[in-house]
Amino acid sequence: MPPQLSPNVMHFDEVPAFPRGFRCASRNCGLKADGKDLALFASDTDATAAAVFTRNQFPGAPVVLGRETIKGGVLRAIVANSKVSNVATGAEGLANARRMAAAAAKELGTTSDHILVSSTGVIGRRLPVEKIEAGLVGMAADLQSDPLVGAAGIMTTDTHPKALSTRVGDATVTWVAKGSGMIEPNMATMLAYIFTDAEMERTALDRMLRDAVHVSFNMLSVDSDTSTSDTCAILANGRAGRVDERAFFDALVAGCIRMTEILARDGEGAEHLIRARVTGAASDDEARRVAKSLINSPLVKTMVHGADPNVGRLLMAVGKCFDCVIAPESTDASINGYQVVRGGARVDFDDAVVRDTLRREVVDLEISLGVGKADATAFGCDLTQGYIDENAAYYSS
Amino acid sequence: MPPQLSPNVMHFDEVPAFPRGFRCASRNCGLKADGKDLALFASDTDATAAAVFTRNQFPGAPVVLGRETIKGGVLRAIVANSKVSNVATGAEGLANARRMAAAAAKELGTTSDHILVSSTGVIGRRLPVEKIEAGLVGMAADLQSDPLVGAAGIMTTDTHPKALSTRVGDATVTWVAKGSGMIEPNMATMLAYIFTDAEMERTALDRMLRDAVHVSFNMLSVDSDTSTSDTCAILANGRAGRVDERAFFDALVAGCIRMTEILARDGEGAEHLIRARVTGAASDDEARRVAKSLINSPLVKTMVHGADPNVGRLLMAVGKCFDCVIAPESTDASINGYQVVRGGARVDFDDAVVRDTLRREVVDLEISLGVGKADATAFGCDLTQGYIDENAAYYSS
Repeated sequence: MPPQLSPNVMHFDEVPAFPRGFRCASRNCGLKADGKDLALFASDTDATAAAVFTRNQFPGAPVVLGRETIKGGVLRAIVANSKVSNVATGAEGLANARRMAAAAAKELGTTSDHILVSSTGVIGRRLPVEKIEAGLVGMAADLQSDPLVGAAGIMTTDTHPKALSTRVGDATVTWVAKGSGMIEPNMATMLAYIFTDAEMERTALDRMLRDAVHVSFNMLSVDSDTSTSDTCAILANGRAGRVDERAFFDALVAGCIRMTEILARDGEGAEHLIRARVTGAASDDEARRVAKSLINSPLVKTMVHGADPNVGRLLMAVGKCFDCVIAPESTDASINGYQVVRGGARVDFDDAVVRDTLRREVVDLEISLGVGKADATAFGCDLTQGYIDENAAYYSS
Repeated sequence: MPPQLSPNVMHFDEVPAFPRGFRCASRNCGLKADGKDLALFASDTDATAAAVFTRNQFPGAPVVLGRETIKGGVLRAIVANSKVSNVATGAEGLANARRMAAAAAKELGTTSDHILVSSTGVIGRRLPVEKIEAGLVGMAADLQSDPLVGAAGIMTTDTHPKALSTRVGDATVTWVAKGSGMIEPNMATMLAYIFTDAEMERTALDRMLRDAVHVSFNMLSVDSDTSTSDTCAILANGRAGRVDERAFFDALVAGCIRMTEILARDGEGAEHLIRARVTGAASDDEARRVAKSLINSPLVKTMVHGADPNVGRLLMAVGKCFDCVIAPESTDASINGYQVVRGGARVDFDDAVVRDTLRREVVDLEISLGVGKADATAFGCDLTQGYIDENAAYYSS
């Protein structure tokens, strides 16, 4: 994990921990040749829950089932497998997702409607649900307190398991996520689970999750491709009692942004985290669109990859937002604080200095549009041979 | 040039030729270390003209000037340089574009308002206009009849000069273009010039150009990045008299599509031409958006590059068109005629056969949405290490 992500005001634990009452386990059940491919995240007691899912119009069977499940607003556990995403699998796929929920419910002594199911991996292959059912037997006995153990079970092309935790009053909030490619979430990221022992009302939890996702996972793009499996869920089991709602929301946002940065930095083949901050936009929506345009531009991504200060590409990526209010004469741009564009024209900067700053692991692009008061930040990564290698043979490997 | 582009009904000349009265020349004027960097395309007499330009909100100085020039509806010549695009260069840039027009006008014995100026190359560098002015002196004496000579003068990362010609009645139509990266034109492609000796009314010429560009250059995307220099212009000098308007339009569309395929196949680093045909869409706009989504998806592009039949990615790319009418149950997909998706689910196809067909130089993706009657085709290419190599060090090299 890179040492220097955002200078976050929030303190995150050195070693991530679970809130009271949450535990997890992971196993290899035979989907992958080796490595964990099945994870279970469970609360000892029922938890208030909220979730958001992909907007892709070919949602996977687990997403279709999850939308139904989350209507109840209560979850006991999440069961997730990697390697096969159970997407584009028709009616049999939905039946298999239900079997997966039923098997987890049986193992934990609860009912299927309290289980959220996720699957991630290749699209269009039949889910080997028998292996998952067999794998779940006895898994309750493995439940333990390290969130990274569960995170390991949901990895696909991720290079490391991802978990974070922090404290709000007497409560703990823990994030577990995976995701590296096919990432421009729209409503959620690939798979991100948030656990807390704070006591929260269901409607407040839902609202806070949506607001936090709006400025974090929904501003992430590794490759502009929106997964068919994106899911972000939060479970609050109330074991720590009530906490200050504002402090809880601040922690939720800070952790979601931090996790977004961790996912972007671990984008397939990535060597840099790129943050694009847009200020002075005419509206929140336009600030977000321009920031995303920068993060998604292959030419901006390769500029960072090559540490090549071809700064005209920043203007190109801003200018291709045809429907946004943009005034060349008021547009400024900087890279890691070095101004490279003033009033829509390249300034006479020191090439060597800018080239050098582009070699930093975290590259901050700042665009000031000067036409309004809205701002937004998007999170992405550079485009490298590693991305192409991983994706030219992902299905076969 | 690939042997098997679209099975075009139109006959294109084996060796491209100019219409009567058109000639061109190219030179090295010192912008590039070697290779042609300055081109002049001239008609012996004034020609009726129309043009469309980039929608990027940071248009280059030549585009700003070109919009003004084309209002007159008459052109004698086009002068174009490669290596430096004269974009993001402020008031001095516009003055330099005007100097370039004036120098070409002087050389050809006409006035600046009859000269279209183009520049292509790195953004944000000052145009060395003195070198261009010096280079233009005596260039009228070099004018000759091979369009490929002019095409060579406007190449940047193109691997070959691009020209086409065909006949309509007694008239000839000739296309000259360049473009390889920063290509998702919006209103036109990078630089494409069309010359004809047919006699055309200005308003008809303008309308036909826009209609032809709509289904050709505006459906091309190498990398989703819209250039700040895109220009497509047509010059009709009338030397062949009037021709059948319908036949002329058919030829114009066919040539624009053929040139679009040539540009896509020569996309930076490309090894495949990808055509995405969408049928049964709810509207023309939605058919175009879905086709573009397929062509622009890095995961679809790497699938073709790796000849890896990860066909779920086709559904992903369709499904991320959030605002289009899409019904999974009526969605079918095929690759080079082999059906891989039926009713939103992967069919049980022969992996080896589909893998094999993905190795063809031209890969046809067909998506049938089954929700309406509109269709569209988009043109693109695969994503390779070559794209990254070229763009990680384009500025420095």
